[in-house]
Amino acid sequence: MDDRELLKVVTEIVGRENTIDDCAVVPCGDQLMVMTTDMLHRTTDFVEGMSDWQIGWMSAAVTLSDIASMAAEPKYLLIAVGLDDWKSLAGVMQGAQDCCRRYGAAIIGGDIDHHGELTVVTTGIGLVDRNRIVRRTGAQPGDLICITGTPGQAQAYLEGYLQYEQALFEPQPRVEEGKRLGMGGVSAMMDDSDGIALSLYDLASVNDCGFSLDSAKLPRPARIPGDQARELALFGGGDYELIFTLPPRRHPVEGVSYTIIGTTIEGNGVLIDGLPLEKRGYQHRW
Amino acid sequence: MDDRELLKVVTEIVGRENTIDDCAVVPCGDQLMVMTTDMLHRTTDFVEGMSDWQIGWMSAAVTLSDIASMAAEPKYLLIAVGLDDWKSLAGVMQGAQDCCRRYGAAIIGGDIDHHGELTVVTTGIGLVDRNRIVRRTGAQPGDLICITGTPGQAQAYLEGYLQYEQALFEPQPRVEEGKRLGMGGVSAMMDDSDGIALSLYDLASVNDCGFSLDSAKLPRPARIPGDQARELALFGGGDYELIFTLPPRRHPVEGVSYTIIGTTIEGNGVLIDGLPLEKRGYQHRW
Repeated sequence: MDDRELLKVVTEIVGRENTIDDCAVVPCGDQLMVMTTDMLHRTTDFVEGMSDWQIGWMSAAVTLSDIASMAAEPKYLLIAVGLDDWKSLAGVMQGAQDCCRRYGAAIIGGDIDHHGELTVVTTGIGLVDRNRIVRRTGAQPGDLICITGTPGQAQAYLEGYLQYEQALFEPQPRVEEGKRLGMGGVSAMMDDSDGIALSLYDLASVNDCGFSLDSAKLPRPARIPGDQARELALFGGGDYELIFTLPPRRHPVEGVSYTIIGTTIEGNGVLIDGLPLEKRGYQHRW
Repeated sequence: MDDRELLKVVTEIVGRENTIDDCAVVPCGDQLMVMTTDMLHRTTDFVEGMSDWQIGWMSAAVTLSDIASMAAEPKYLLIAVGLDDWKSLAGVMQGAQDCCRRYGAAIIGGDIDHHGELTVVTTGIGLVDRNRIVRRTGAQPGDLICITGTPGQAQAYLEGYLQYEQALFEPQPRVEEGKRLGMGGVSAMMDDSDGIALSLYDLASVNDCGFSLDSAKLPRPARIPGDQARELALFGGGDYELIFTLPPRRHPVEGVSYTIIGTTIEGNGVLIDGLPLEKRGYQHRW
């Protein structure tokens, strides 16, 4: 059983509409409020060598990334910290606070608990105008498939390319890019934290179109042998780039650096160079 | 080092204003939005014998209680579940869902993770009119000190009075009472989840008045010897009653059942029958 199968259990209880996007969406005055929560903990998410500050930073960053992927502006963060050692608290809180400040959000609440394993749960709240929000749904055949930055760097660190430490330890959520992409009229968006392949399968499962990649266009981490770089870019997890679809007439979106890596097509599924793309990436296994 | 000392570490980083009340408060259109997050886990919070459903119910209830204590209306819940056994998921989610439905809220998002210990983090969001919100601050000398329900029942179960199982396993947050108390003009409020004594010390620390209890007026769990019942009512944790101060001219608040247990006085501190009340109750120790 993997995360996506467990999600089905949840969907049956809370309904499908609340499990499609990276964030829940509710009205807030004239605007929309987006909300998301993420649980991270030592064994699974915090790599050996990370400082408490980096653990706090990453915990905030993954949540701000979900908000960015809806084209929303992060406003507030609540943080629950389960501590195996109380001496970690100041570092974790400072890292989360610095990340929030960097991206315009504020920590407004939290909880502290003693726990057998360092566990951090961040809940992020953002605001977005009703006509600017971007969801996972909305892609149309003929849209461009695009991605910010260079995917695969976080996983590259785990495979021994230590120059990519910062990509994994201090992810930079694409908050400003997300807002500009919302204004620029992208049709569907999510972050690629589980890797490009799984992200595209997620998009394919909620849109009435297929996704066709051109491997030659895929940005890859530099100074890594070709096959491995391609593997990392497609299947590596732990990145927080934005992957999105864009009607060709809206290209280019001003002020955002991104790469066109394919187009959406009639039909369904995910192809690379015309062949089915393997459906694998970062998933917890039970 | 206890929870309240750890809170000082947090206060230095995120600022004091966000650590006083049970919830953070932010504007949302014409209203105020209150938000709170709680981490519960097997070792510390889920008593042996609780079902998965009860674990989910309790996890939602503690968060809804924080919202109730601000006189707000619970609207949304996000729930992050760290599972040591995926078979627990459906029960936990159903319990949380049933509790939310009972009190008018909806689960709108969440996260699932594999974890060495069952850990549930609930984040609750509520709405309240600007002129109805009640905070921990606002008490004035001469106010009545009041409490809903009968404190000490949850702790009574832990001390062998098994008839109080439901109080501990399926707490009923005072959502309707909270809203009516807000409309009824109470001056300060919180829930008593750490026990009456610590709750009053918390209120005393943020108000410019003292709190004087009359032990004869204190409701106590029935069919328990007198001294033990008094001890449970004052120092027992795990209840989710509302403890509040009320200007005498606003008494009685219509439609809410509560007991007057004392009055606020000039000065500071917490007294019972004229003597200082011991400052102890439910606190994690490190």
